[in-house]
Amino acid sequence: MPVVTVQMWEGRTSEQKRKLMRALTEAMVEHAGARPEGLHIVLQEIPKENWGSASTLGQADRA
Amino acid sequence: MPVVTVQMWEGRTSEQKRKLMRALTEAMVEHAGARPEGLHIVLQEIPKENWGSASTLGQADRA
Amino acid sequence: MPVVTVQMWEGRTSEQKRKLMRALTEAMVEHAGARPEGLHIVLQEIPKENWGSASTLGQADRA
Amino acid sequence: MPVVTVQMWEGRTSEQKRKLMRALTEAMVEHAGARPEGLHIVLQEIPKENWGSASTLGQADRA
Amino acid sequence: MPVVTVQMWEGRTSEQKRKLMRALTEAMVEHAGARPEGLHIVLQEIPKENWGSASTLGQADRA
Amino acid sequence: MPVVTVQMWEGRTSEQKRKLMRALTEAMVEHAGARPEGLHIVLQEIPKENWGSASTLGQADRA
Repeated sequence: MPVVTVQMWEGRTSEQKRKLMRALTEAMVEHAGARPEGLHIVLQEIPKENWGSASTLGQADRA
Repeated sequence: MPVVTVQMWEGRTSEQKRKLMRALTEAMVEHAGARPEGLHIVLQEIPKENWGSASTLGQADRA
Repeated sequence: MPVVTVQMWEGRTSEQKRKLMRALTEAMVEHAGARPEGLHIVLQEIPKENWGSASTLGQADRA
Repeated sequence: MPVVTVQMWEGRTSEQKRKLMRALTEAMVEHAGARPEGLHIVLQEIPKENWGSASTLGQADRA
Repeated sequence: MPVVTVQMWEGRTSEQKRKLMRALTEAMVEHAGARPEGLHIVLQEIPKENWGSASTLGQADRA
Repeated sequence: MPVVTVQMWEGRTSEQKRKLMRALTEAMVEHAGARPEGLHIVLQEIPKENWGSASTLGQADRA
C-alpha cells in the first residue's frame, strides 16, 4: 500500500529509471512488507536550477 | 486552509483538469469544512515512465 | 492509479475523515478516470502550530 | 542528492525501519548514482484511518 | 538536514529562483538550526492550469 | 499562492517554529512575489528514527 516519491535531478535514461523503480519495489516488498500490486513509485525529476543545496548555491562558504 | 496534491499520469485535457479541481474543492468544502478561498489544489502530472507499479513494472510476476 | 495527499489541520473525527475520503475518491473516479482499486488517499493532519499563513502569523499586517 | 519520501501505514519496528532505509539507500546508490552523504530518506507513517483505498473504503463495490 | 519543497506557479527567472533559494536557506539556517550542507530546497513549478484555488476556479461564488 | 512544506527533525519549540515560519514567509514575499494571504507554510516534524541519511545510517562507510 505504500507510496514512494523520489525527488531527484533530471537526466536518467528510461532504462535507468525502470531499474531504479524495480530496486525500490524490491526493497519495499522485502523490508516493509508491501504487496507489489499495492505499491506506487513516483519519480519527480527536478531541473538542476530548481534544486538548492550548499554545493549548488555556495551557501557553505557564507553561513 | 487545506492543500490537496494530486499525483497522476499526464494526459488530461485542461477542461478535465478544471472539472476535477472543482469536484475536489466541493468535496473538501462539504466534508472537511474548508473555506474555498483558503483551499489549494495542485495537480502534479507524472509521465508514465516515471510511475512504477506492479502493472507497469511487471513486479507482480516476480515478487 | 493516482495518489491524493491532503494536508489539513488536525481535528476531524474518524467519521468525517471517512466521508471525506469517499467524496475525494468519487471525484477522482468521475473526473480523472481513476479506478478505485488503484487510487490512494492520504490525509496528513497538521497541528495548528505547524501551519503558517497570514491569519495565523499576522503577516498580512506586516508585509 | 535525492530525497525519498515514503508514505506507509504505521506499525513497523525501529529495526524494520532501519533495514528499510538501508535497502532504499542501496537502491538509490546503485541505480540513481546517488552519493550516500547527499541522500535523505523520510518515512511518513500514516494511521490506517487516514489512508483511503478501495479495500479500506469499500469503494470497489460502489464505483 | 531539512528538506524544503516549494510548490509555486511557474514563471520565475533563474536569477529569481536562485535568490529565493538563498533566502530560504538563510531562514532555515538561522531559525531551524540547519547546517547549509545538509539542507535541500526543491522548487516545483506548477503550470497555472494545474493549480486550483478560489480565484482561479471561481469557487468562491458558488460555495 | 505558493505552498512551502518543510520536512525536518522534530524538537523545535513553538516559538522557534513561529519565527521560522515568519522568516520563510518573508523570503517568499520578497523573492517569489507571494502575497502573504495566499501563502501556506507546513512544517512536518519527522522523528529521528524515521529519517535516514549517511550519518544516521552509517551508509557512508559501506557504500
